[in-house]
Amino acid sequence: MTPPPLQPRPDAPLDAPLDAPLDAVAAFRAEDERFVHRLHAELEEFLDRQRAVLAGISADALPLLDAVAALSSGGKRLRARLCYWGWRAAGGDPEDPAVARAGAALELFQSAALIHDDVIDRSDTRRGAPSVHRRFEGLHAAESWQLDGPAFGVASAILAGDLCLSWSEQLFAAAAAQLPGAARARAVFDLMRSEVMVGQYLDVQGEVAGAGQDRAGAVQRALDVIRYKSAKYSVEHPVALGAALAGADEPALARCSAFALPLGEAFQLRDDVLGVFGDPATTGKPAGDDLREGKRTVLVGFVRRRGSEEQIAELEAALGSQDLDDDDVRRLRALITACGALQATEELIDALSGQAFAALDRLGAGPVPMAALRALATAAVRRAA
Amino acid sequence: MTPPPLQPRPDAPLDAPLDAPLDAVAAFRAEDERFVHRLHAELEEFLDRQRAVLAGISADALPLLDAVAALSSGGKRLRARLCYWGWRAAGGDPEDPAVARAGAALELFQSAALIHDDVIDRSDTRRGAPSVHRRFEGLHAAESWQLDGPAFGVASAILAGDLCLSWSEQLFAAAAAQLPGAARARAVFDLMRSEVMVGQYLDVQGEVAGAGQDRAGAVQRALDVIRYKSAKYSVEHPVALGAALAGADEPALARCSAFALPLGEAFQLRDDVLGVFGDPATTGKPAGDDLREGKRTVLVGFVRRRGSEEQIAELEAALGSQDLDDDDVRRLRALITACGALQATEELIDALSGQAFAALDRLGAGPVPMAALRALATAAVRRAA
Repeated sequence: MTPPPLQPRPDAPLDAPLDAPLDAVAAFRAEDERFVHRLHAELEEFLDRQRAVLAGISADALPLLDAVAALSSGGKRLRARLCYWGWRAAGGDPEDPAVARAGAALELFQSAALIHDDVIDRSDTRRGAPSVHRRFEGLHAAESWQLDGPAFGVASAILAGDLCLSWSEQLFAAAAAQLPGAARARAVFDLMRSEVMVGQYLDVQGEVAGAGQDRAGAVQRALDVIRYKSAKYSVEHPVALGAALAGADEPALARCSAFALPLGEAFQLRDDVLGVFGDPATTGKPAGDDLREGKRTVLVGFVRRRGSEEQIAELEAALGSQDLDDDDVRRLRALITACGALQATEELIDALSGQAFAALDRLGAGPVPMAALRALATAAVRRAA
Repeated sequence: MTPPPLQPRPDAPLDAPLDAPLDAVAAFRAEDERFVHRLHAELEEFLDRQRAVLAGISADALPLLDAVAALSSGGKRLRARLCYWGWRAAGGDPEDPAVARAGAALELFQSAALIHDDVIDRSDTRRGAPSVHRRFEGLHAAESWQLDGPAFGVASAILAGDLCLSWSEQLFAAAAAQLPGAARARAVFDLMRSEVMVGQYLDVQGEVAGAGQDRAGAVQRALDVIRYKSAKYSVEHPVALGAALAGADEPALARCSAFALPLGEAFQLRDDVLGVFGDPATTGKPAGDDLREGKRTVLVGFVRRRGSEEQIAELEAALGSQDLDDDDVRRLRALITACGALQATEELIDALSGQAFAALDRLGAGPVPMAALRALATAAVRRAA
């Protein structure tokens, strides 16, 4: 099935102004809010239907649904909103229910990834609440069940994530079914899933293999991980998915990627900085969690490239230690700052952001989608949580 | 999209003979073999394409592909073959590549379920080889990587299972895309995934909560678990999926279920008997593994209903102990036999098989699909591995 090539709508000037007019900003805000409202309704309706399916099997199964619903009720909806604005930039109808459904599919995919990621990273909290495996461990304790509570928590979280992953795809298939861009969107969706799982594997593989690998390549390997684990999945693919569903052709999708991929890389680098320097009160995760997990981030790569032998040895000894306390984290923060690794990372964020915003100017969408993508991009790279 | 109602082909008598003529048996064997050959080609071609995708990201990611490919090269192909014969019973064209693709999707779904199941059950082996998490733990050791090898194994297996689950769906979507029965088949596929994950959750939940639950309901709860975790997914849904893809209508799908659901229950009960009484040399799993995992099977349910207080207490004390040795397993086998639980389970297998074979006689398909389904059904309930 080859979708028809899509041209920008007549009201979408190819040279959108660098600064969107104020009425475009106001219009995008109202429209963005309306979309998030429809997204929530779509998610809620879908999960209500699944609740009925699970209740029909056994009331004992409902904690699975509750865990997915609780996790999926939070978050900034970044991926769904990027999908919506990619759809709108490619001329999609704001009222078409398919785009809210596709956005809900992305949110459930994100939930599935978070549930399994938290098992892998042994994270106790997520979005300020217990992670899903901890939630089920808590259920085990509250019900005074037998045998191994933490193992029950992990087993339940693996299954909840699997369920969520299936549901995500079920929603995506329903969203795409009636659209002319279904085949191209399906290709984006399939690639997105493979790439994020491979990226996560490279991340954990880097944690165990990284110390033995050459120092010169450390920054590049870390950049590869964030490209596949995060940048493509959190930003590039959502924008491309929305545009493809609206019928965008390959050149239009390439213009989306030129904007969204460097933006996604800047987004994840910001995440890496927050993973070491972020305030637990705003991030909802313990201070320095990435150090405790032994993540081979770009920050760590820059220390290995720029630090003294003593600094590198100190960081290597600490990376992956589950028992780092607040003082250790403070000491490592000072080390990462002193050797210039923090500044080098911030400079990279700036360079990638600059690239993204320049490509955005060449996207050639209407003033309202342009204002929206600019605002989402700014929030993604300047955030504190 | 409402598929056209499907009628049996003119050459398919509504009253198929109880014993298929010998030429039908020979014809099904040749056709079954041809299908398995095409199934393997489809799987291989798909995995080769995914290998190229992964290699394009990083050569370090290839162990994920290798693990999935190794696991998916084995097995009896029961689900794919049931899907094929469901398709044929509903009048599907033997040469249509879509059915081999759908079969490959089921095989990858099975691989995904096995990978995560082995993590959950802490199983060391699968199909006579190390389970996927053990395989990655072995890679960690072979490469002398740092940090926690078992944790790396579990993380990798979670991600390999996720990848496999996504690939399964990707293949299913490709198979269904061009078929008139796509919408009804999609409903079967979606329900199958939810039900098996919920069934697995009820299984692990039963392991931790079961001892505290009432004895009278133990057999019924165990039957609920096998219905959702196994019977529907291993037998009923594959047959229904094939028939739906071929365009079967709801009454035809109901006739498939009347045959395939009791057959699936008998199949899983046979599995439960083998999980305690099976020979490790033929099952590829350690003797008495289900006891060590604390599975609340129908066998256990019958002991709780029929055993003496001493027998029940002895079994309860042993269930879920990781350190049961061969003598313990022999003792527990004798207990399960002595109190009549084994015989009660065998009688249930016989009753369900009888129900299945009677419904098969009413399926009203052609002589070749009838001979095939009869042979697969017989193998499913009489097997030793």
